[in-house]
Amino acid sequence: MGQKIIALDAMGGDHGPVVTVAAAKLALDEIPDLELILVGDERQLTAEFEKHNLNQNSRAQIYHASQVVDMDEKPAIALKKKKDSSMRVSINLVKEGRVQACISAGNTGALMATSKFVLKTIQGISRPAICTTLPGINGHTHMLDLGANLECTPENLAEFALMGSVLAQSVEGIKNPSIGLLNIGSESVKGSESVKRASQLIDESSLNYYGFVEGDDIYKGTVNVIVTDGFVGNVSLKTAEGLAALVNHVLKSEFRRNWLTKLAAFCALPVLSSVGRKLDPRRYNGASLLGLNGIVVKSHGSADTSSFLNAIKIAALEIENNVPQRISGAIESYFSQTGEAVT
Amino acid sequence: MGQKIIALDAMGGDHGPVVTVAAAKLALDEIPDLELILVGDERQLTAEFEKHNLNQNSRAQIYHASQVVDMDEKPAIALKKKKDSSMRVSINLVKEGRVQACISAGNTGALMATSKFVLKTIQGISRPAICTTLPGINGHTHMLDLGANLECTPENLAEFALMGSVLAQSVEGIKNPSIGLLNIGSESVKGSESVKRASQLIDESSLNYYGFVEGDDIYKGTVNVIVTDGFVGNVSLKTAEGLAALVNHVLKSEFRRNWLTKLAAFCALPVLSSVGRKLDPRRYNGASLLGLNGIVVKSHGSADTSSFLNAIKIAALEIENNVPQRISGAIESYFSQTGEAVT
Repeated sequence: MGQKIIALDAMGGDHGPVVTVAAAKLALDEIPDLELILVGDERQLTAEFEKHNLNQNSRAQIYHASQVVDMDEKPAIALKKKKDSSMRVSINLVKEGRVQACISAGNTGALMATSKFVLKTIQGISRPAICTTLPGINGHTHMLDLGANLECTPENLAEFALMGSVLAQSVEGIKNPSIGLLNIGSESVKGSESVKRASQLIDESSLNYYGFVEGDDIYKGTVNVIVTDGFVGNVSLKTAEGLAALVNHVLKSEFRRNWLTKLAAFCALPVLSSVGRKLDPRRYNGASLLGLNGIVVKSHGSADTSSFLNAIKIAALEIENNVPQRISGAIESYFSQTGEAVT
Repeated sequence: MGQKIIALDAMGGDHGPVVTVAAAKLALDEIPDLELILVGDERQLTAEFEKHNLNQNSRAQIYHASQVVDMDEKPAIALKKKKDSSMRVSINLVKEGRVQACISAGNTGALMATSKFVLKTIQGISRPAICTTLPGINGHTHMLDLGANLECTPENLAEFALMGSVLAQSVEGIKNPSIGLLNIGSESVKGSESVKRASQLIDESSLNYYGFVEGDDIYKGTVNVIVTDGFVGNVSLKTAEGLAALVNHVLKSEFRRNWLTKLAAFCALPVLSSVGRKLDPRRYNGASLLGLNGIVVKSHGSADTSSFLNAIKIAALEIENNVPQRISGAIESYFSQTGEAVT
């Protein structure tokens, strides 16, 4: 086929069509073999297409959906009452094989619940997980789970390791990604029983297991993939967001203190901008919902055009690399090694 | 009495007496009613005293201890085989009432285990916790636990809330500190059963409960005290360390790129230094082991003189405010409210 066809939940996120249509235009320019189906309110989307001089054609289509999932809507309610939401219809298009992936900047819980319901989990995987890419001193780190699973069994964590390994291979081209299991460094205790058992399981698999890593290894880039449960992953991710906001706040207020510091800011601006670009979380926007029979990418709700574009690129890479099929293959060979049946 | 008498484990940490004696000298100059007992190898300490023109007198004494706990020694081994270690002897001095607090930059696990063994836990508190101060956009946050307790019951978390509240009152002078319980912000799930139950318990207490907070609230300074289990607390703390190292690394490499960026660095240096000072983790060095019958402060192992000095100041503040007695009083009134007996 060659073509990459992606459905965009064009209404999701804080900015809706303003961002999704603008990002769609950029993506179509950048990726020659891309086709996009923008799902949502036809009138709003048509207006936005006009604003961007974007014509409906074989590469850019509008697909009407009458509802929108609210950002704070309960997943169960979204699943039950919003059967014609832009999110649900986008996922349905994946299920029907009309597109190879979908992207949404909407409500994470609803996206995960609906994706699980519509696409189902890959055979052999107990629970899907959310995985994102983070910058590090020695390279990128893929971390999962980031909030889909609060409490995880050792088996769940081992499956996350396998899925993270496939993703790192696919989007970074790393042959045999190194896997670290997040633990704490207190000398008195080396992790809960569950973490210890997960360590054993991953160690016995064919994955390239590095061993335990600590929180500071995330942004060092010590390993290619870091595995943890959704509670810890989410807190860690948000801790970093908070610290980045603090650093930004202190930098700005110090540089604005008087005319001398303002002059210093003027001199340092090109360098500081380049630092900002290197660490820009927008460059890393696009978390993958792994373990589903289909590709679903979650964009940050507050994503701007350039961020949303990045999420589209990630989905395109996952299509190119058949991520769900590769996870499915990997889990089969994992179970055939451990002698367990794929359930 | 008026005097504040503190024992320093003078051999602990990466730098031992080089740092502890230098910090002792600064502390004695800064705090007029302070007396210090430096515990460790008499010969080494005497030599270090001479280097700093520090005389042994009523305010600065050397107390010989023949052993040192290694940084990677197992707590159980330290407890059993190192009965004359500088760490153990410092804690003994607290127990004997010869000093009102002790400070160590040594092995955290051994310090916690030995402190629990020697000083015992305050009646009514099930488990001691480690608490530190972190900078935030809207003020400081005291976070606990940072690694002493991997898995916590709802009751443990409620006790941490109470202890954190007493500490924030004591070291920051906040009348009724606000308490947040760390949780994740996924829309699908609002925390484990344990976190939900802890939320109920804290809400029913007389503490100033704010409700759930997320990882990014830590460095925003949303609340005065953030409560979580030791695994999550430790990962969050180390995540921040790692991100700070990454930002530092990128800043340095960008400013060193060519002569123009080097010139920019020269112009911006005073402002960047001032930013660095504001966010300097050394300013926050000194974690409190709360819930023990005595004051024990843990300094970072890599602490330099100025950091270690900060840990001494924290211990002095805790003495001034009778932190253990206040925790003991608070837990009694907490239990008398909830109608449970202090066990």
